[in-house]
Amino acid sequence: MTLQRYKATIEYDGTPFNGWQAQPNALGVQSILEKSAFDLFKQPIEIIGAGRTDTGVHAKGQVIHFDAKPLYSADKMKDALNFYLKPYPVCLLDIQPISSEFHARFSAIMREYEYHIVNRRSPLTFLLNRALLVQKPLNITKMQQSAQSFVGRHDLTTFRASGCQAKSPVRTIDSVDFTYLDTHYIMMRVRAKSFLYNQIRSMIGSLIRVGDGSEDIDYIEKLIKATDRTKCGPVAPPHGLYFSRVEY
Amino acid sequence: MTLQRYKATIEYDGTPFNGWQAQPNALGVQSILEKSAFDLFKQPIEIIGAGRTDTGVHAKGQVIHFDAKPLYSADKMKDALNFYLKPYPVCLLDIQPISSEFHARFSAIMREYEYHIVNRRSPLTFLLNRALLVQKPLNITKMQQSAQSFVGRHDLTTFRASGCQAKSPVRTIDSVDFTYLDTHYIMMRVRAKSFLYNQIRSMIGSLIRVGDGSEDIDYIEKLIKATDRTKCGPVAPPHGLYFSRVEY
Repeated sequence: MTLQRYKATIEYDGTPFNGWQAQPNALGVQSILEKSAFDLFKQPIEIIGAGRTDTGVHAKGQVIHFDAKPLYSADKMKDALNFYLKPYPVCLLDIQPISSEFHARFSAIMREYEYHIVNRRSPLTFLLNRALLVQKPLNITKMQQSAQSFVGRHDLTTFRASGCQAKSPVRTIDSVDFTYLDTHYIMMRVRAKSFLYNQIRSMIGSLIRVGDGSEDIDYIEKLIKATDRTKCGPVAPPHGLYFSRVEY
Repeated sequence: MTLQRYKATIEYDGTPFNGWQAQPNALGVQSILEKSAFDLFKQPIEIIGAGRTDTGVHAKGQVIHFDAKPLYSADKMKDALNFYLKPYPVCLLDIQPISSEFHARFSAIMREYEYHIVNRRSPLTFLLNRALLVQKPLNITKMQQSAQSFVGRHDLTTFRASGCQAKSPVRTIDSVDFTYLDTHYIMMRVRAKSFLYNQIRSMIGSLIRVGDGSEDIDYIEKLIKATDRTKCGPVAPPHGLYFSRVEY
């Protein structure tokens, strides 16, 4: 039987996982998906994701592809895979057969991430491990204004973790926007074709220093120009980050 | 030192608790708050809540009062109590000194609850234990329309659990409204001075039968007129329910 390629959108709470990637002796989201595919198809199936998320990072719209025998309709396959995923906070939101030319990682033309912040003095309850608590008051108008320095094509050496394996530190950011999801609940949304390792957590870490008044609005512009990793603000923790959307 | 009365708004994830009320050998939210007050004031302090929530029910705006020596400013007291509450998903959002005439339960003139539903086929990830998953498509226009039969003064015997200790089954509901919080994420908001035991979970359980097409729009009107508990739809589970606001 010829193999069919499938594209699926998946959602996961990153809290219990050791990130996306399958690793020996560590629970990766990819391994969980591969195990559920094995349970359904009774043979090893490789799952390719649009992006690798770090330990604790969440996804609302990660996209995967895999090749399998077309034994079931798309809806049946989704329900069956979700059944095998049930012990874990991971699920398929949709699935569809797609051309074998499609590649979840290489065909992507746009990736979108969200960073969630609760800005209040009281500790978190519902959003524990799902957002960053910032207790100093943040001025999101200043953060929004300062963040516009990121938009466009820049050498982002300052915002790239030392472990980054990308050949070039140059990236083009399409947009960075801050909005209130609720009183005290702030979301940053960033869109780009691709990102450097730890780039978004480095960006938001520096933007928080503008928002809390530690730095001026031109801080981000200065950091970009510096092309110096040691100048970067503190890298924000993973649990506020959501991989929210991929476009092809 | 004369005692001062304090009013505070609190938030909690009801998942790990055996409901609001302090009970021997069961973790009640009230006990956790009384323990943190004891840790701060080094003497037993009784915490009175505006409403008793069941096991698994959440709160975004439960109101409490207690009497204590005015040893600290309101802000210090809030931070200190939140510090002692840290191991639990419970926190004080605000606190203020108030007249000793004020009573969290008896002075309330309006209580507001929310019921959260995710309406999709895929299992829950982020909202596990925080919303009810309904897999059949719901028509919220029909639910909204049918729910209007609840508004006003009615004998709600049909929507009252057998364990209810209220003297009268008559209650006045001020409003019931359905809105989308997000795609597939539905919220019902109900406002009344007071509610019968299990009333909201009984209401939403019956309204879901209208929304999924099992019953017609006049179903709620018929159920109210029946004044017969056995006619009620299935009582919805506690984990979709949030005690959201109290007015005085």
